[in-house]
Amino acid sequence: MKVLILNCGSSSIKFQIADMPEYDVLVSGSVERIGYNDAEFKYTVKENKQTLVTPVLNHEQGINLILETIFNDKVAGIGTDDINAIGHRVVQGGDKQNISVMVDDNVINYIESIKDLAPLHNPNHLAGIYACKKLLTGVPQVVAFDNGFHMTLPQSAYTYGIPYEYYEKYRIRRYGFHGIAFRSMAEEAEKILNASYKNYKIVNMMLGSGTTANALKYGESVEVSTGFTPHEGLIQSTRAGDIDAAAILYLMKKENLTIEQADEIINKKSGWKGLSGISNDMREIYNAAENGNDRARLTIDAVCHRFKKYIGAYSAIMEGIDVLIFSGGVGQNASYIREKVCSGLNYMGIEIDADKNSELKGAGTISSDNSRVKIAVVEANEEKIIAADTYNLCKE
Amino acid sequence: MKVLILNCGSSSIKFQIADMPEYDVLVSGSVERIGYNDAEFKYTVKENKQTLVTPVLNHEQGINLILETIFNDKVAGIGTDDINAIGHRVVQGGDKQNISVMVDDNVINYIESIKDLAPLHNPNHLAGIYACKKLLTGVPQVVAFDNGFHMTLPQSAYTYGIPYEYYEKYRIRRYGFHGIAFRSMAEEAEKILNASYKNYKIVNMMLGSGTTANALKYGESVEVSTGFTPHEGLIQSTRAGDIDAAAILYLMKKENLTIEQADEIINKKSGWKGLSGISNDMREIYNAAENGNDRARLTIDAVCHRFKKYIGAYSAIMEGIDVLIFSGGVGQNASYIREKVCSGLNYMGIEIDADKNSELKGAGTISSDNSRVKIAVVEANEEKIIAADTYNLCKE
Repeated sequence: MKVLILNCGSSSIKFQIADMPEYDVLVSGSVERIGYNDAEFKYTVKENKQTLVTPVLNHEQGINLILETIFNDKVAGIGTDDINAIGHRVVQGGDKQNISVMVDDNVINYIESIKDLAPLHNPNHLAGIYACKKLLTGVPQVVAFDNGFHMTLPQSAYTYGIPYEYYEKYRIRRYGFHGIAFRSMAEEAEKILNASYKNYKIVNMMLGSGTTANALKYGESVEVSTGFTPHEGLIQSTRAGDIDAAAILYLMKKENLTIEQADEIINKKSGWKGLSGISNDMREIYNAAENGNDRARLTIDAVCHRFKKYIGAYSAIMEGIDVLIFSGGVGQNASYIREKVCSGLNYMGIEIDADKNSELKGAGTISSDNSRVKIAVVEANEEKIIAADTYNLCKE
Repeated sequence: MKVLILNCGSSSIKFQIADMPEYDVLVSGSVERIGYNDAEFKYTVKENKQTLVTPVLNHEQGINLILETIFNDKVAGIGTDDINAIGHRVVQGGDKQNISVMVDDNVINYIESIKDLAPLHNPNHLAGIYACKKLLTGVPQVVAFDNGFHMTLPQSAYTYGIPYEYYEKYRIRRYGFHGIAFRSMAEEAEKILNASYKNYKIVNMMLGSGTTANALKYGESVEVSTGFTPHEGLIQSTRAGDIDAAAILYLMKKENLTIEQADEIINKKSGWKGLSGISNDMREIYNAAENGNDRARLTIDAVCHRFKKYIGAYSAIMEGIDVLIFSGGVGQNASYIREKVCSGLNYMGIEIDADKNSELKGAGTISSDNSRVKIAVVEANEEKIIAADTYNLCKE
């Protein structure tokens, strides 16, 4: 079965075409700068990379461009008719959805109804679903909700301390994000654990473009650092994460900010970028710190301090942990951050092997032989999860 | 040496007169409803309680009323001339002050200069200082800054993930509060530990009118849950504590709130009160939960979940702990909350003794004999700390 996997962002579409159930990726690529005359379309077929600059004014045009280029020319040996199913990543599924469901009118209406909770994301996902309905009529579609994985959070974990009426009226609660990535991390870790992840109490640290911590207890997400929006929690590449809400109100007053401006500051201008003043790329910050830049050092220290707090917090609520998993660009590559974060956690059974950690390439284990907690590094693959769910829902 | 201890709030003055260094309290009392014609003046001399309802329009009148009533009539056997020093509690000391300092023009100017950081508190403290200058001319005054105790926080702990310029421009950082109470808790615990608190890694849980967690490592505060304002952190009696700042922005938009209204919601209408819809008094919430009220149960669960996260987080940053101390109205009296919060933390050496815990009256130890971490319950006494600091600074 050939599955088209789509991730429609605000100005981009990422896609893969995979043969399932093997998850053999036939084509992968992206359309960037949607809305412009010089949008960039890139795709890779068997390590053969192509780039095309062309006007793409909306998501429908973007998907059409993908379909025409890939399938009409059969660049991967398959035509449009060979597509058996489509899987979409959807950021916000509210609090009523499991991770993956078949698309029908009810699901579309539901995503429409909660657009307001993810104004930057859900409208683009919907545009992708509508475009596929039109361009690939009759092909079954599946949506994988990025926060569906966190619907197992107990109410005590997802309830904020604000008046309860705002939960009832506006559904303001912790949703948590990057759930597809967390499920992928746990599944990838099974290769290292030689057992189902559902046997363990796990802290997942996704440290990359999404920077989120997750407490995964015997297969169920019980806590997550992102909240009502992806802003909350860890200090992220451009997001502030945890901060006294009253400090933001103070800043709004001082700088005469609108709600939108405040939102932009905490989401786009903060985090590693805003703290360091250097970059939102941790590699550049690390290099600056190595060259003696104080703010770069502070950024790394503050980021790691926050990471450590979450590992500790999630261990407490799960009553100890068995496995600590790192993933994401920073989690997979920044051995100095993994070492800093794990240092001194022997009291809870975490002991990193400094050599294994610094020498690791790709996925593997970095805990010492004596460490009660297994520390793993894995590569999360969200597309693989979406493809698997799409396959499983559509195979009959 | 007789010390007058003053805590000037927005519409109240709490006071004590103590003989030092014994800390023998001669008189204690309060003036409430300052600004009204029916202000209430209460004081206790040797268990003899008096109440007087009279107009008190400002802090100077309030302090004058205290002085005239207590000293002119020598109700405690001493006159105004017997007052040797005055100690004031000041909520916000910015980031440039130790816990206690002698008042001089520089200190007054400094408190004036940071009024903006604590608009509800510092102006009243200043009113108290000015009134004492006028009414007790020549008597030395000391201020104890409530956040001076937290000036030992490392930069990585007090720095938020927002653009660094807002720290430089507006001093937006974590200050932390209830520092005088935390020092008192640690000093009180010494009676139980039979050693200086500076020998230990301690998590302080002040659960009462102030609800704050504190990480105290070998005598230095290294983390605290309150932040730029007292709002951040734990779910408090009327404060929300940690919440996605973007959720507050969303709420402001939905409800068309001003900054002041949003601030009032998160500080005055949230927390135990807003979540339960019952009361800001945990005893009432507990009774409702016992009678099957779901929101009361949720409130207790959410509050304890948050408490537990902080114990875990602070253990991680201190790399394990030796002592866990509870204080405050809830910390001292709500044994069910202490039990809930400590349950399942054996992995980090915390083991509560259920019998000791439920039977405890007053201060004592509630950990089991096998518990690696000592769990103590103490009564914090901020006035005692202020009196001691005032005595030490003025005794020569």
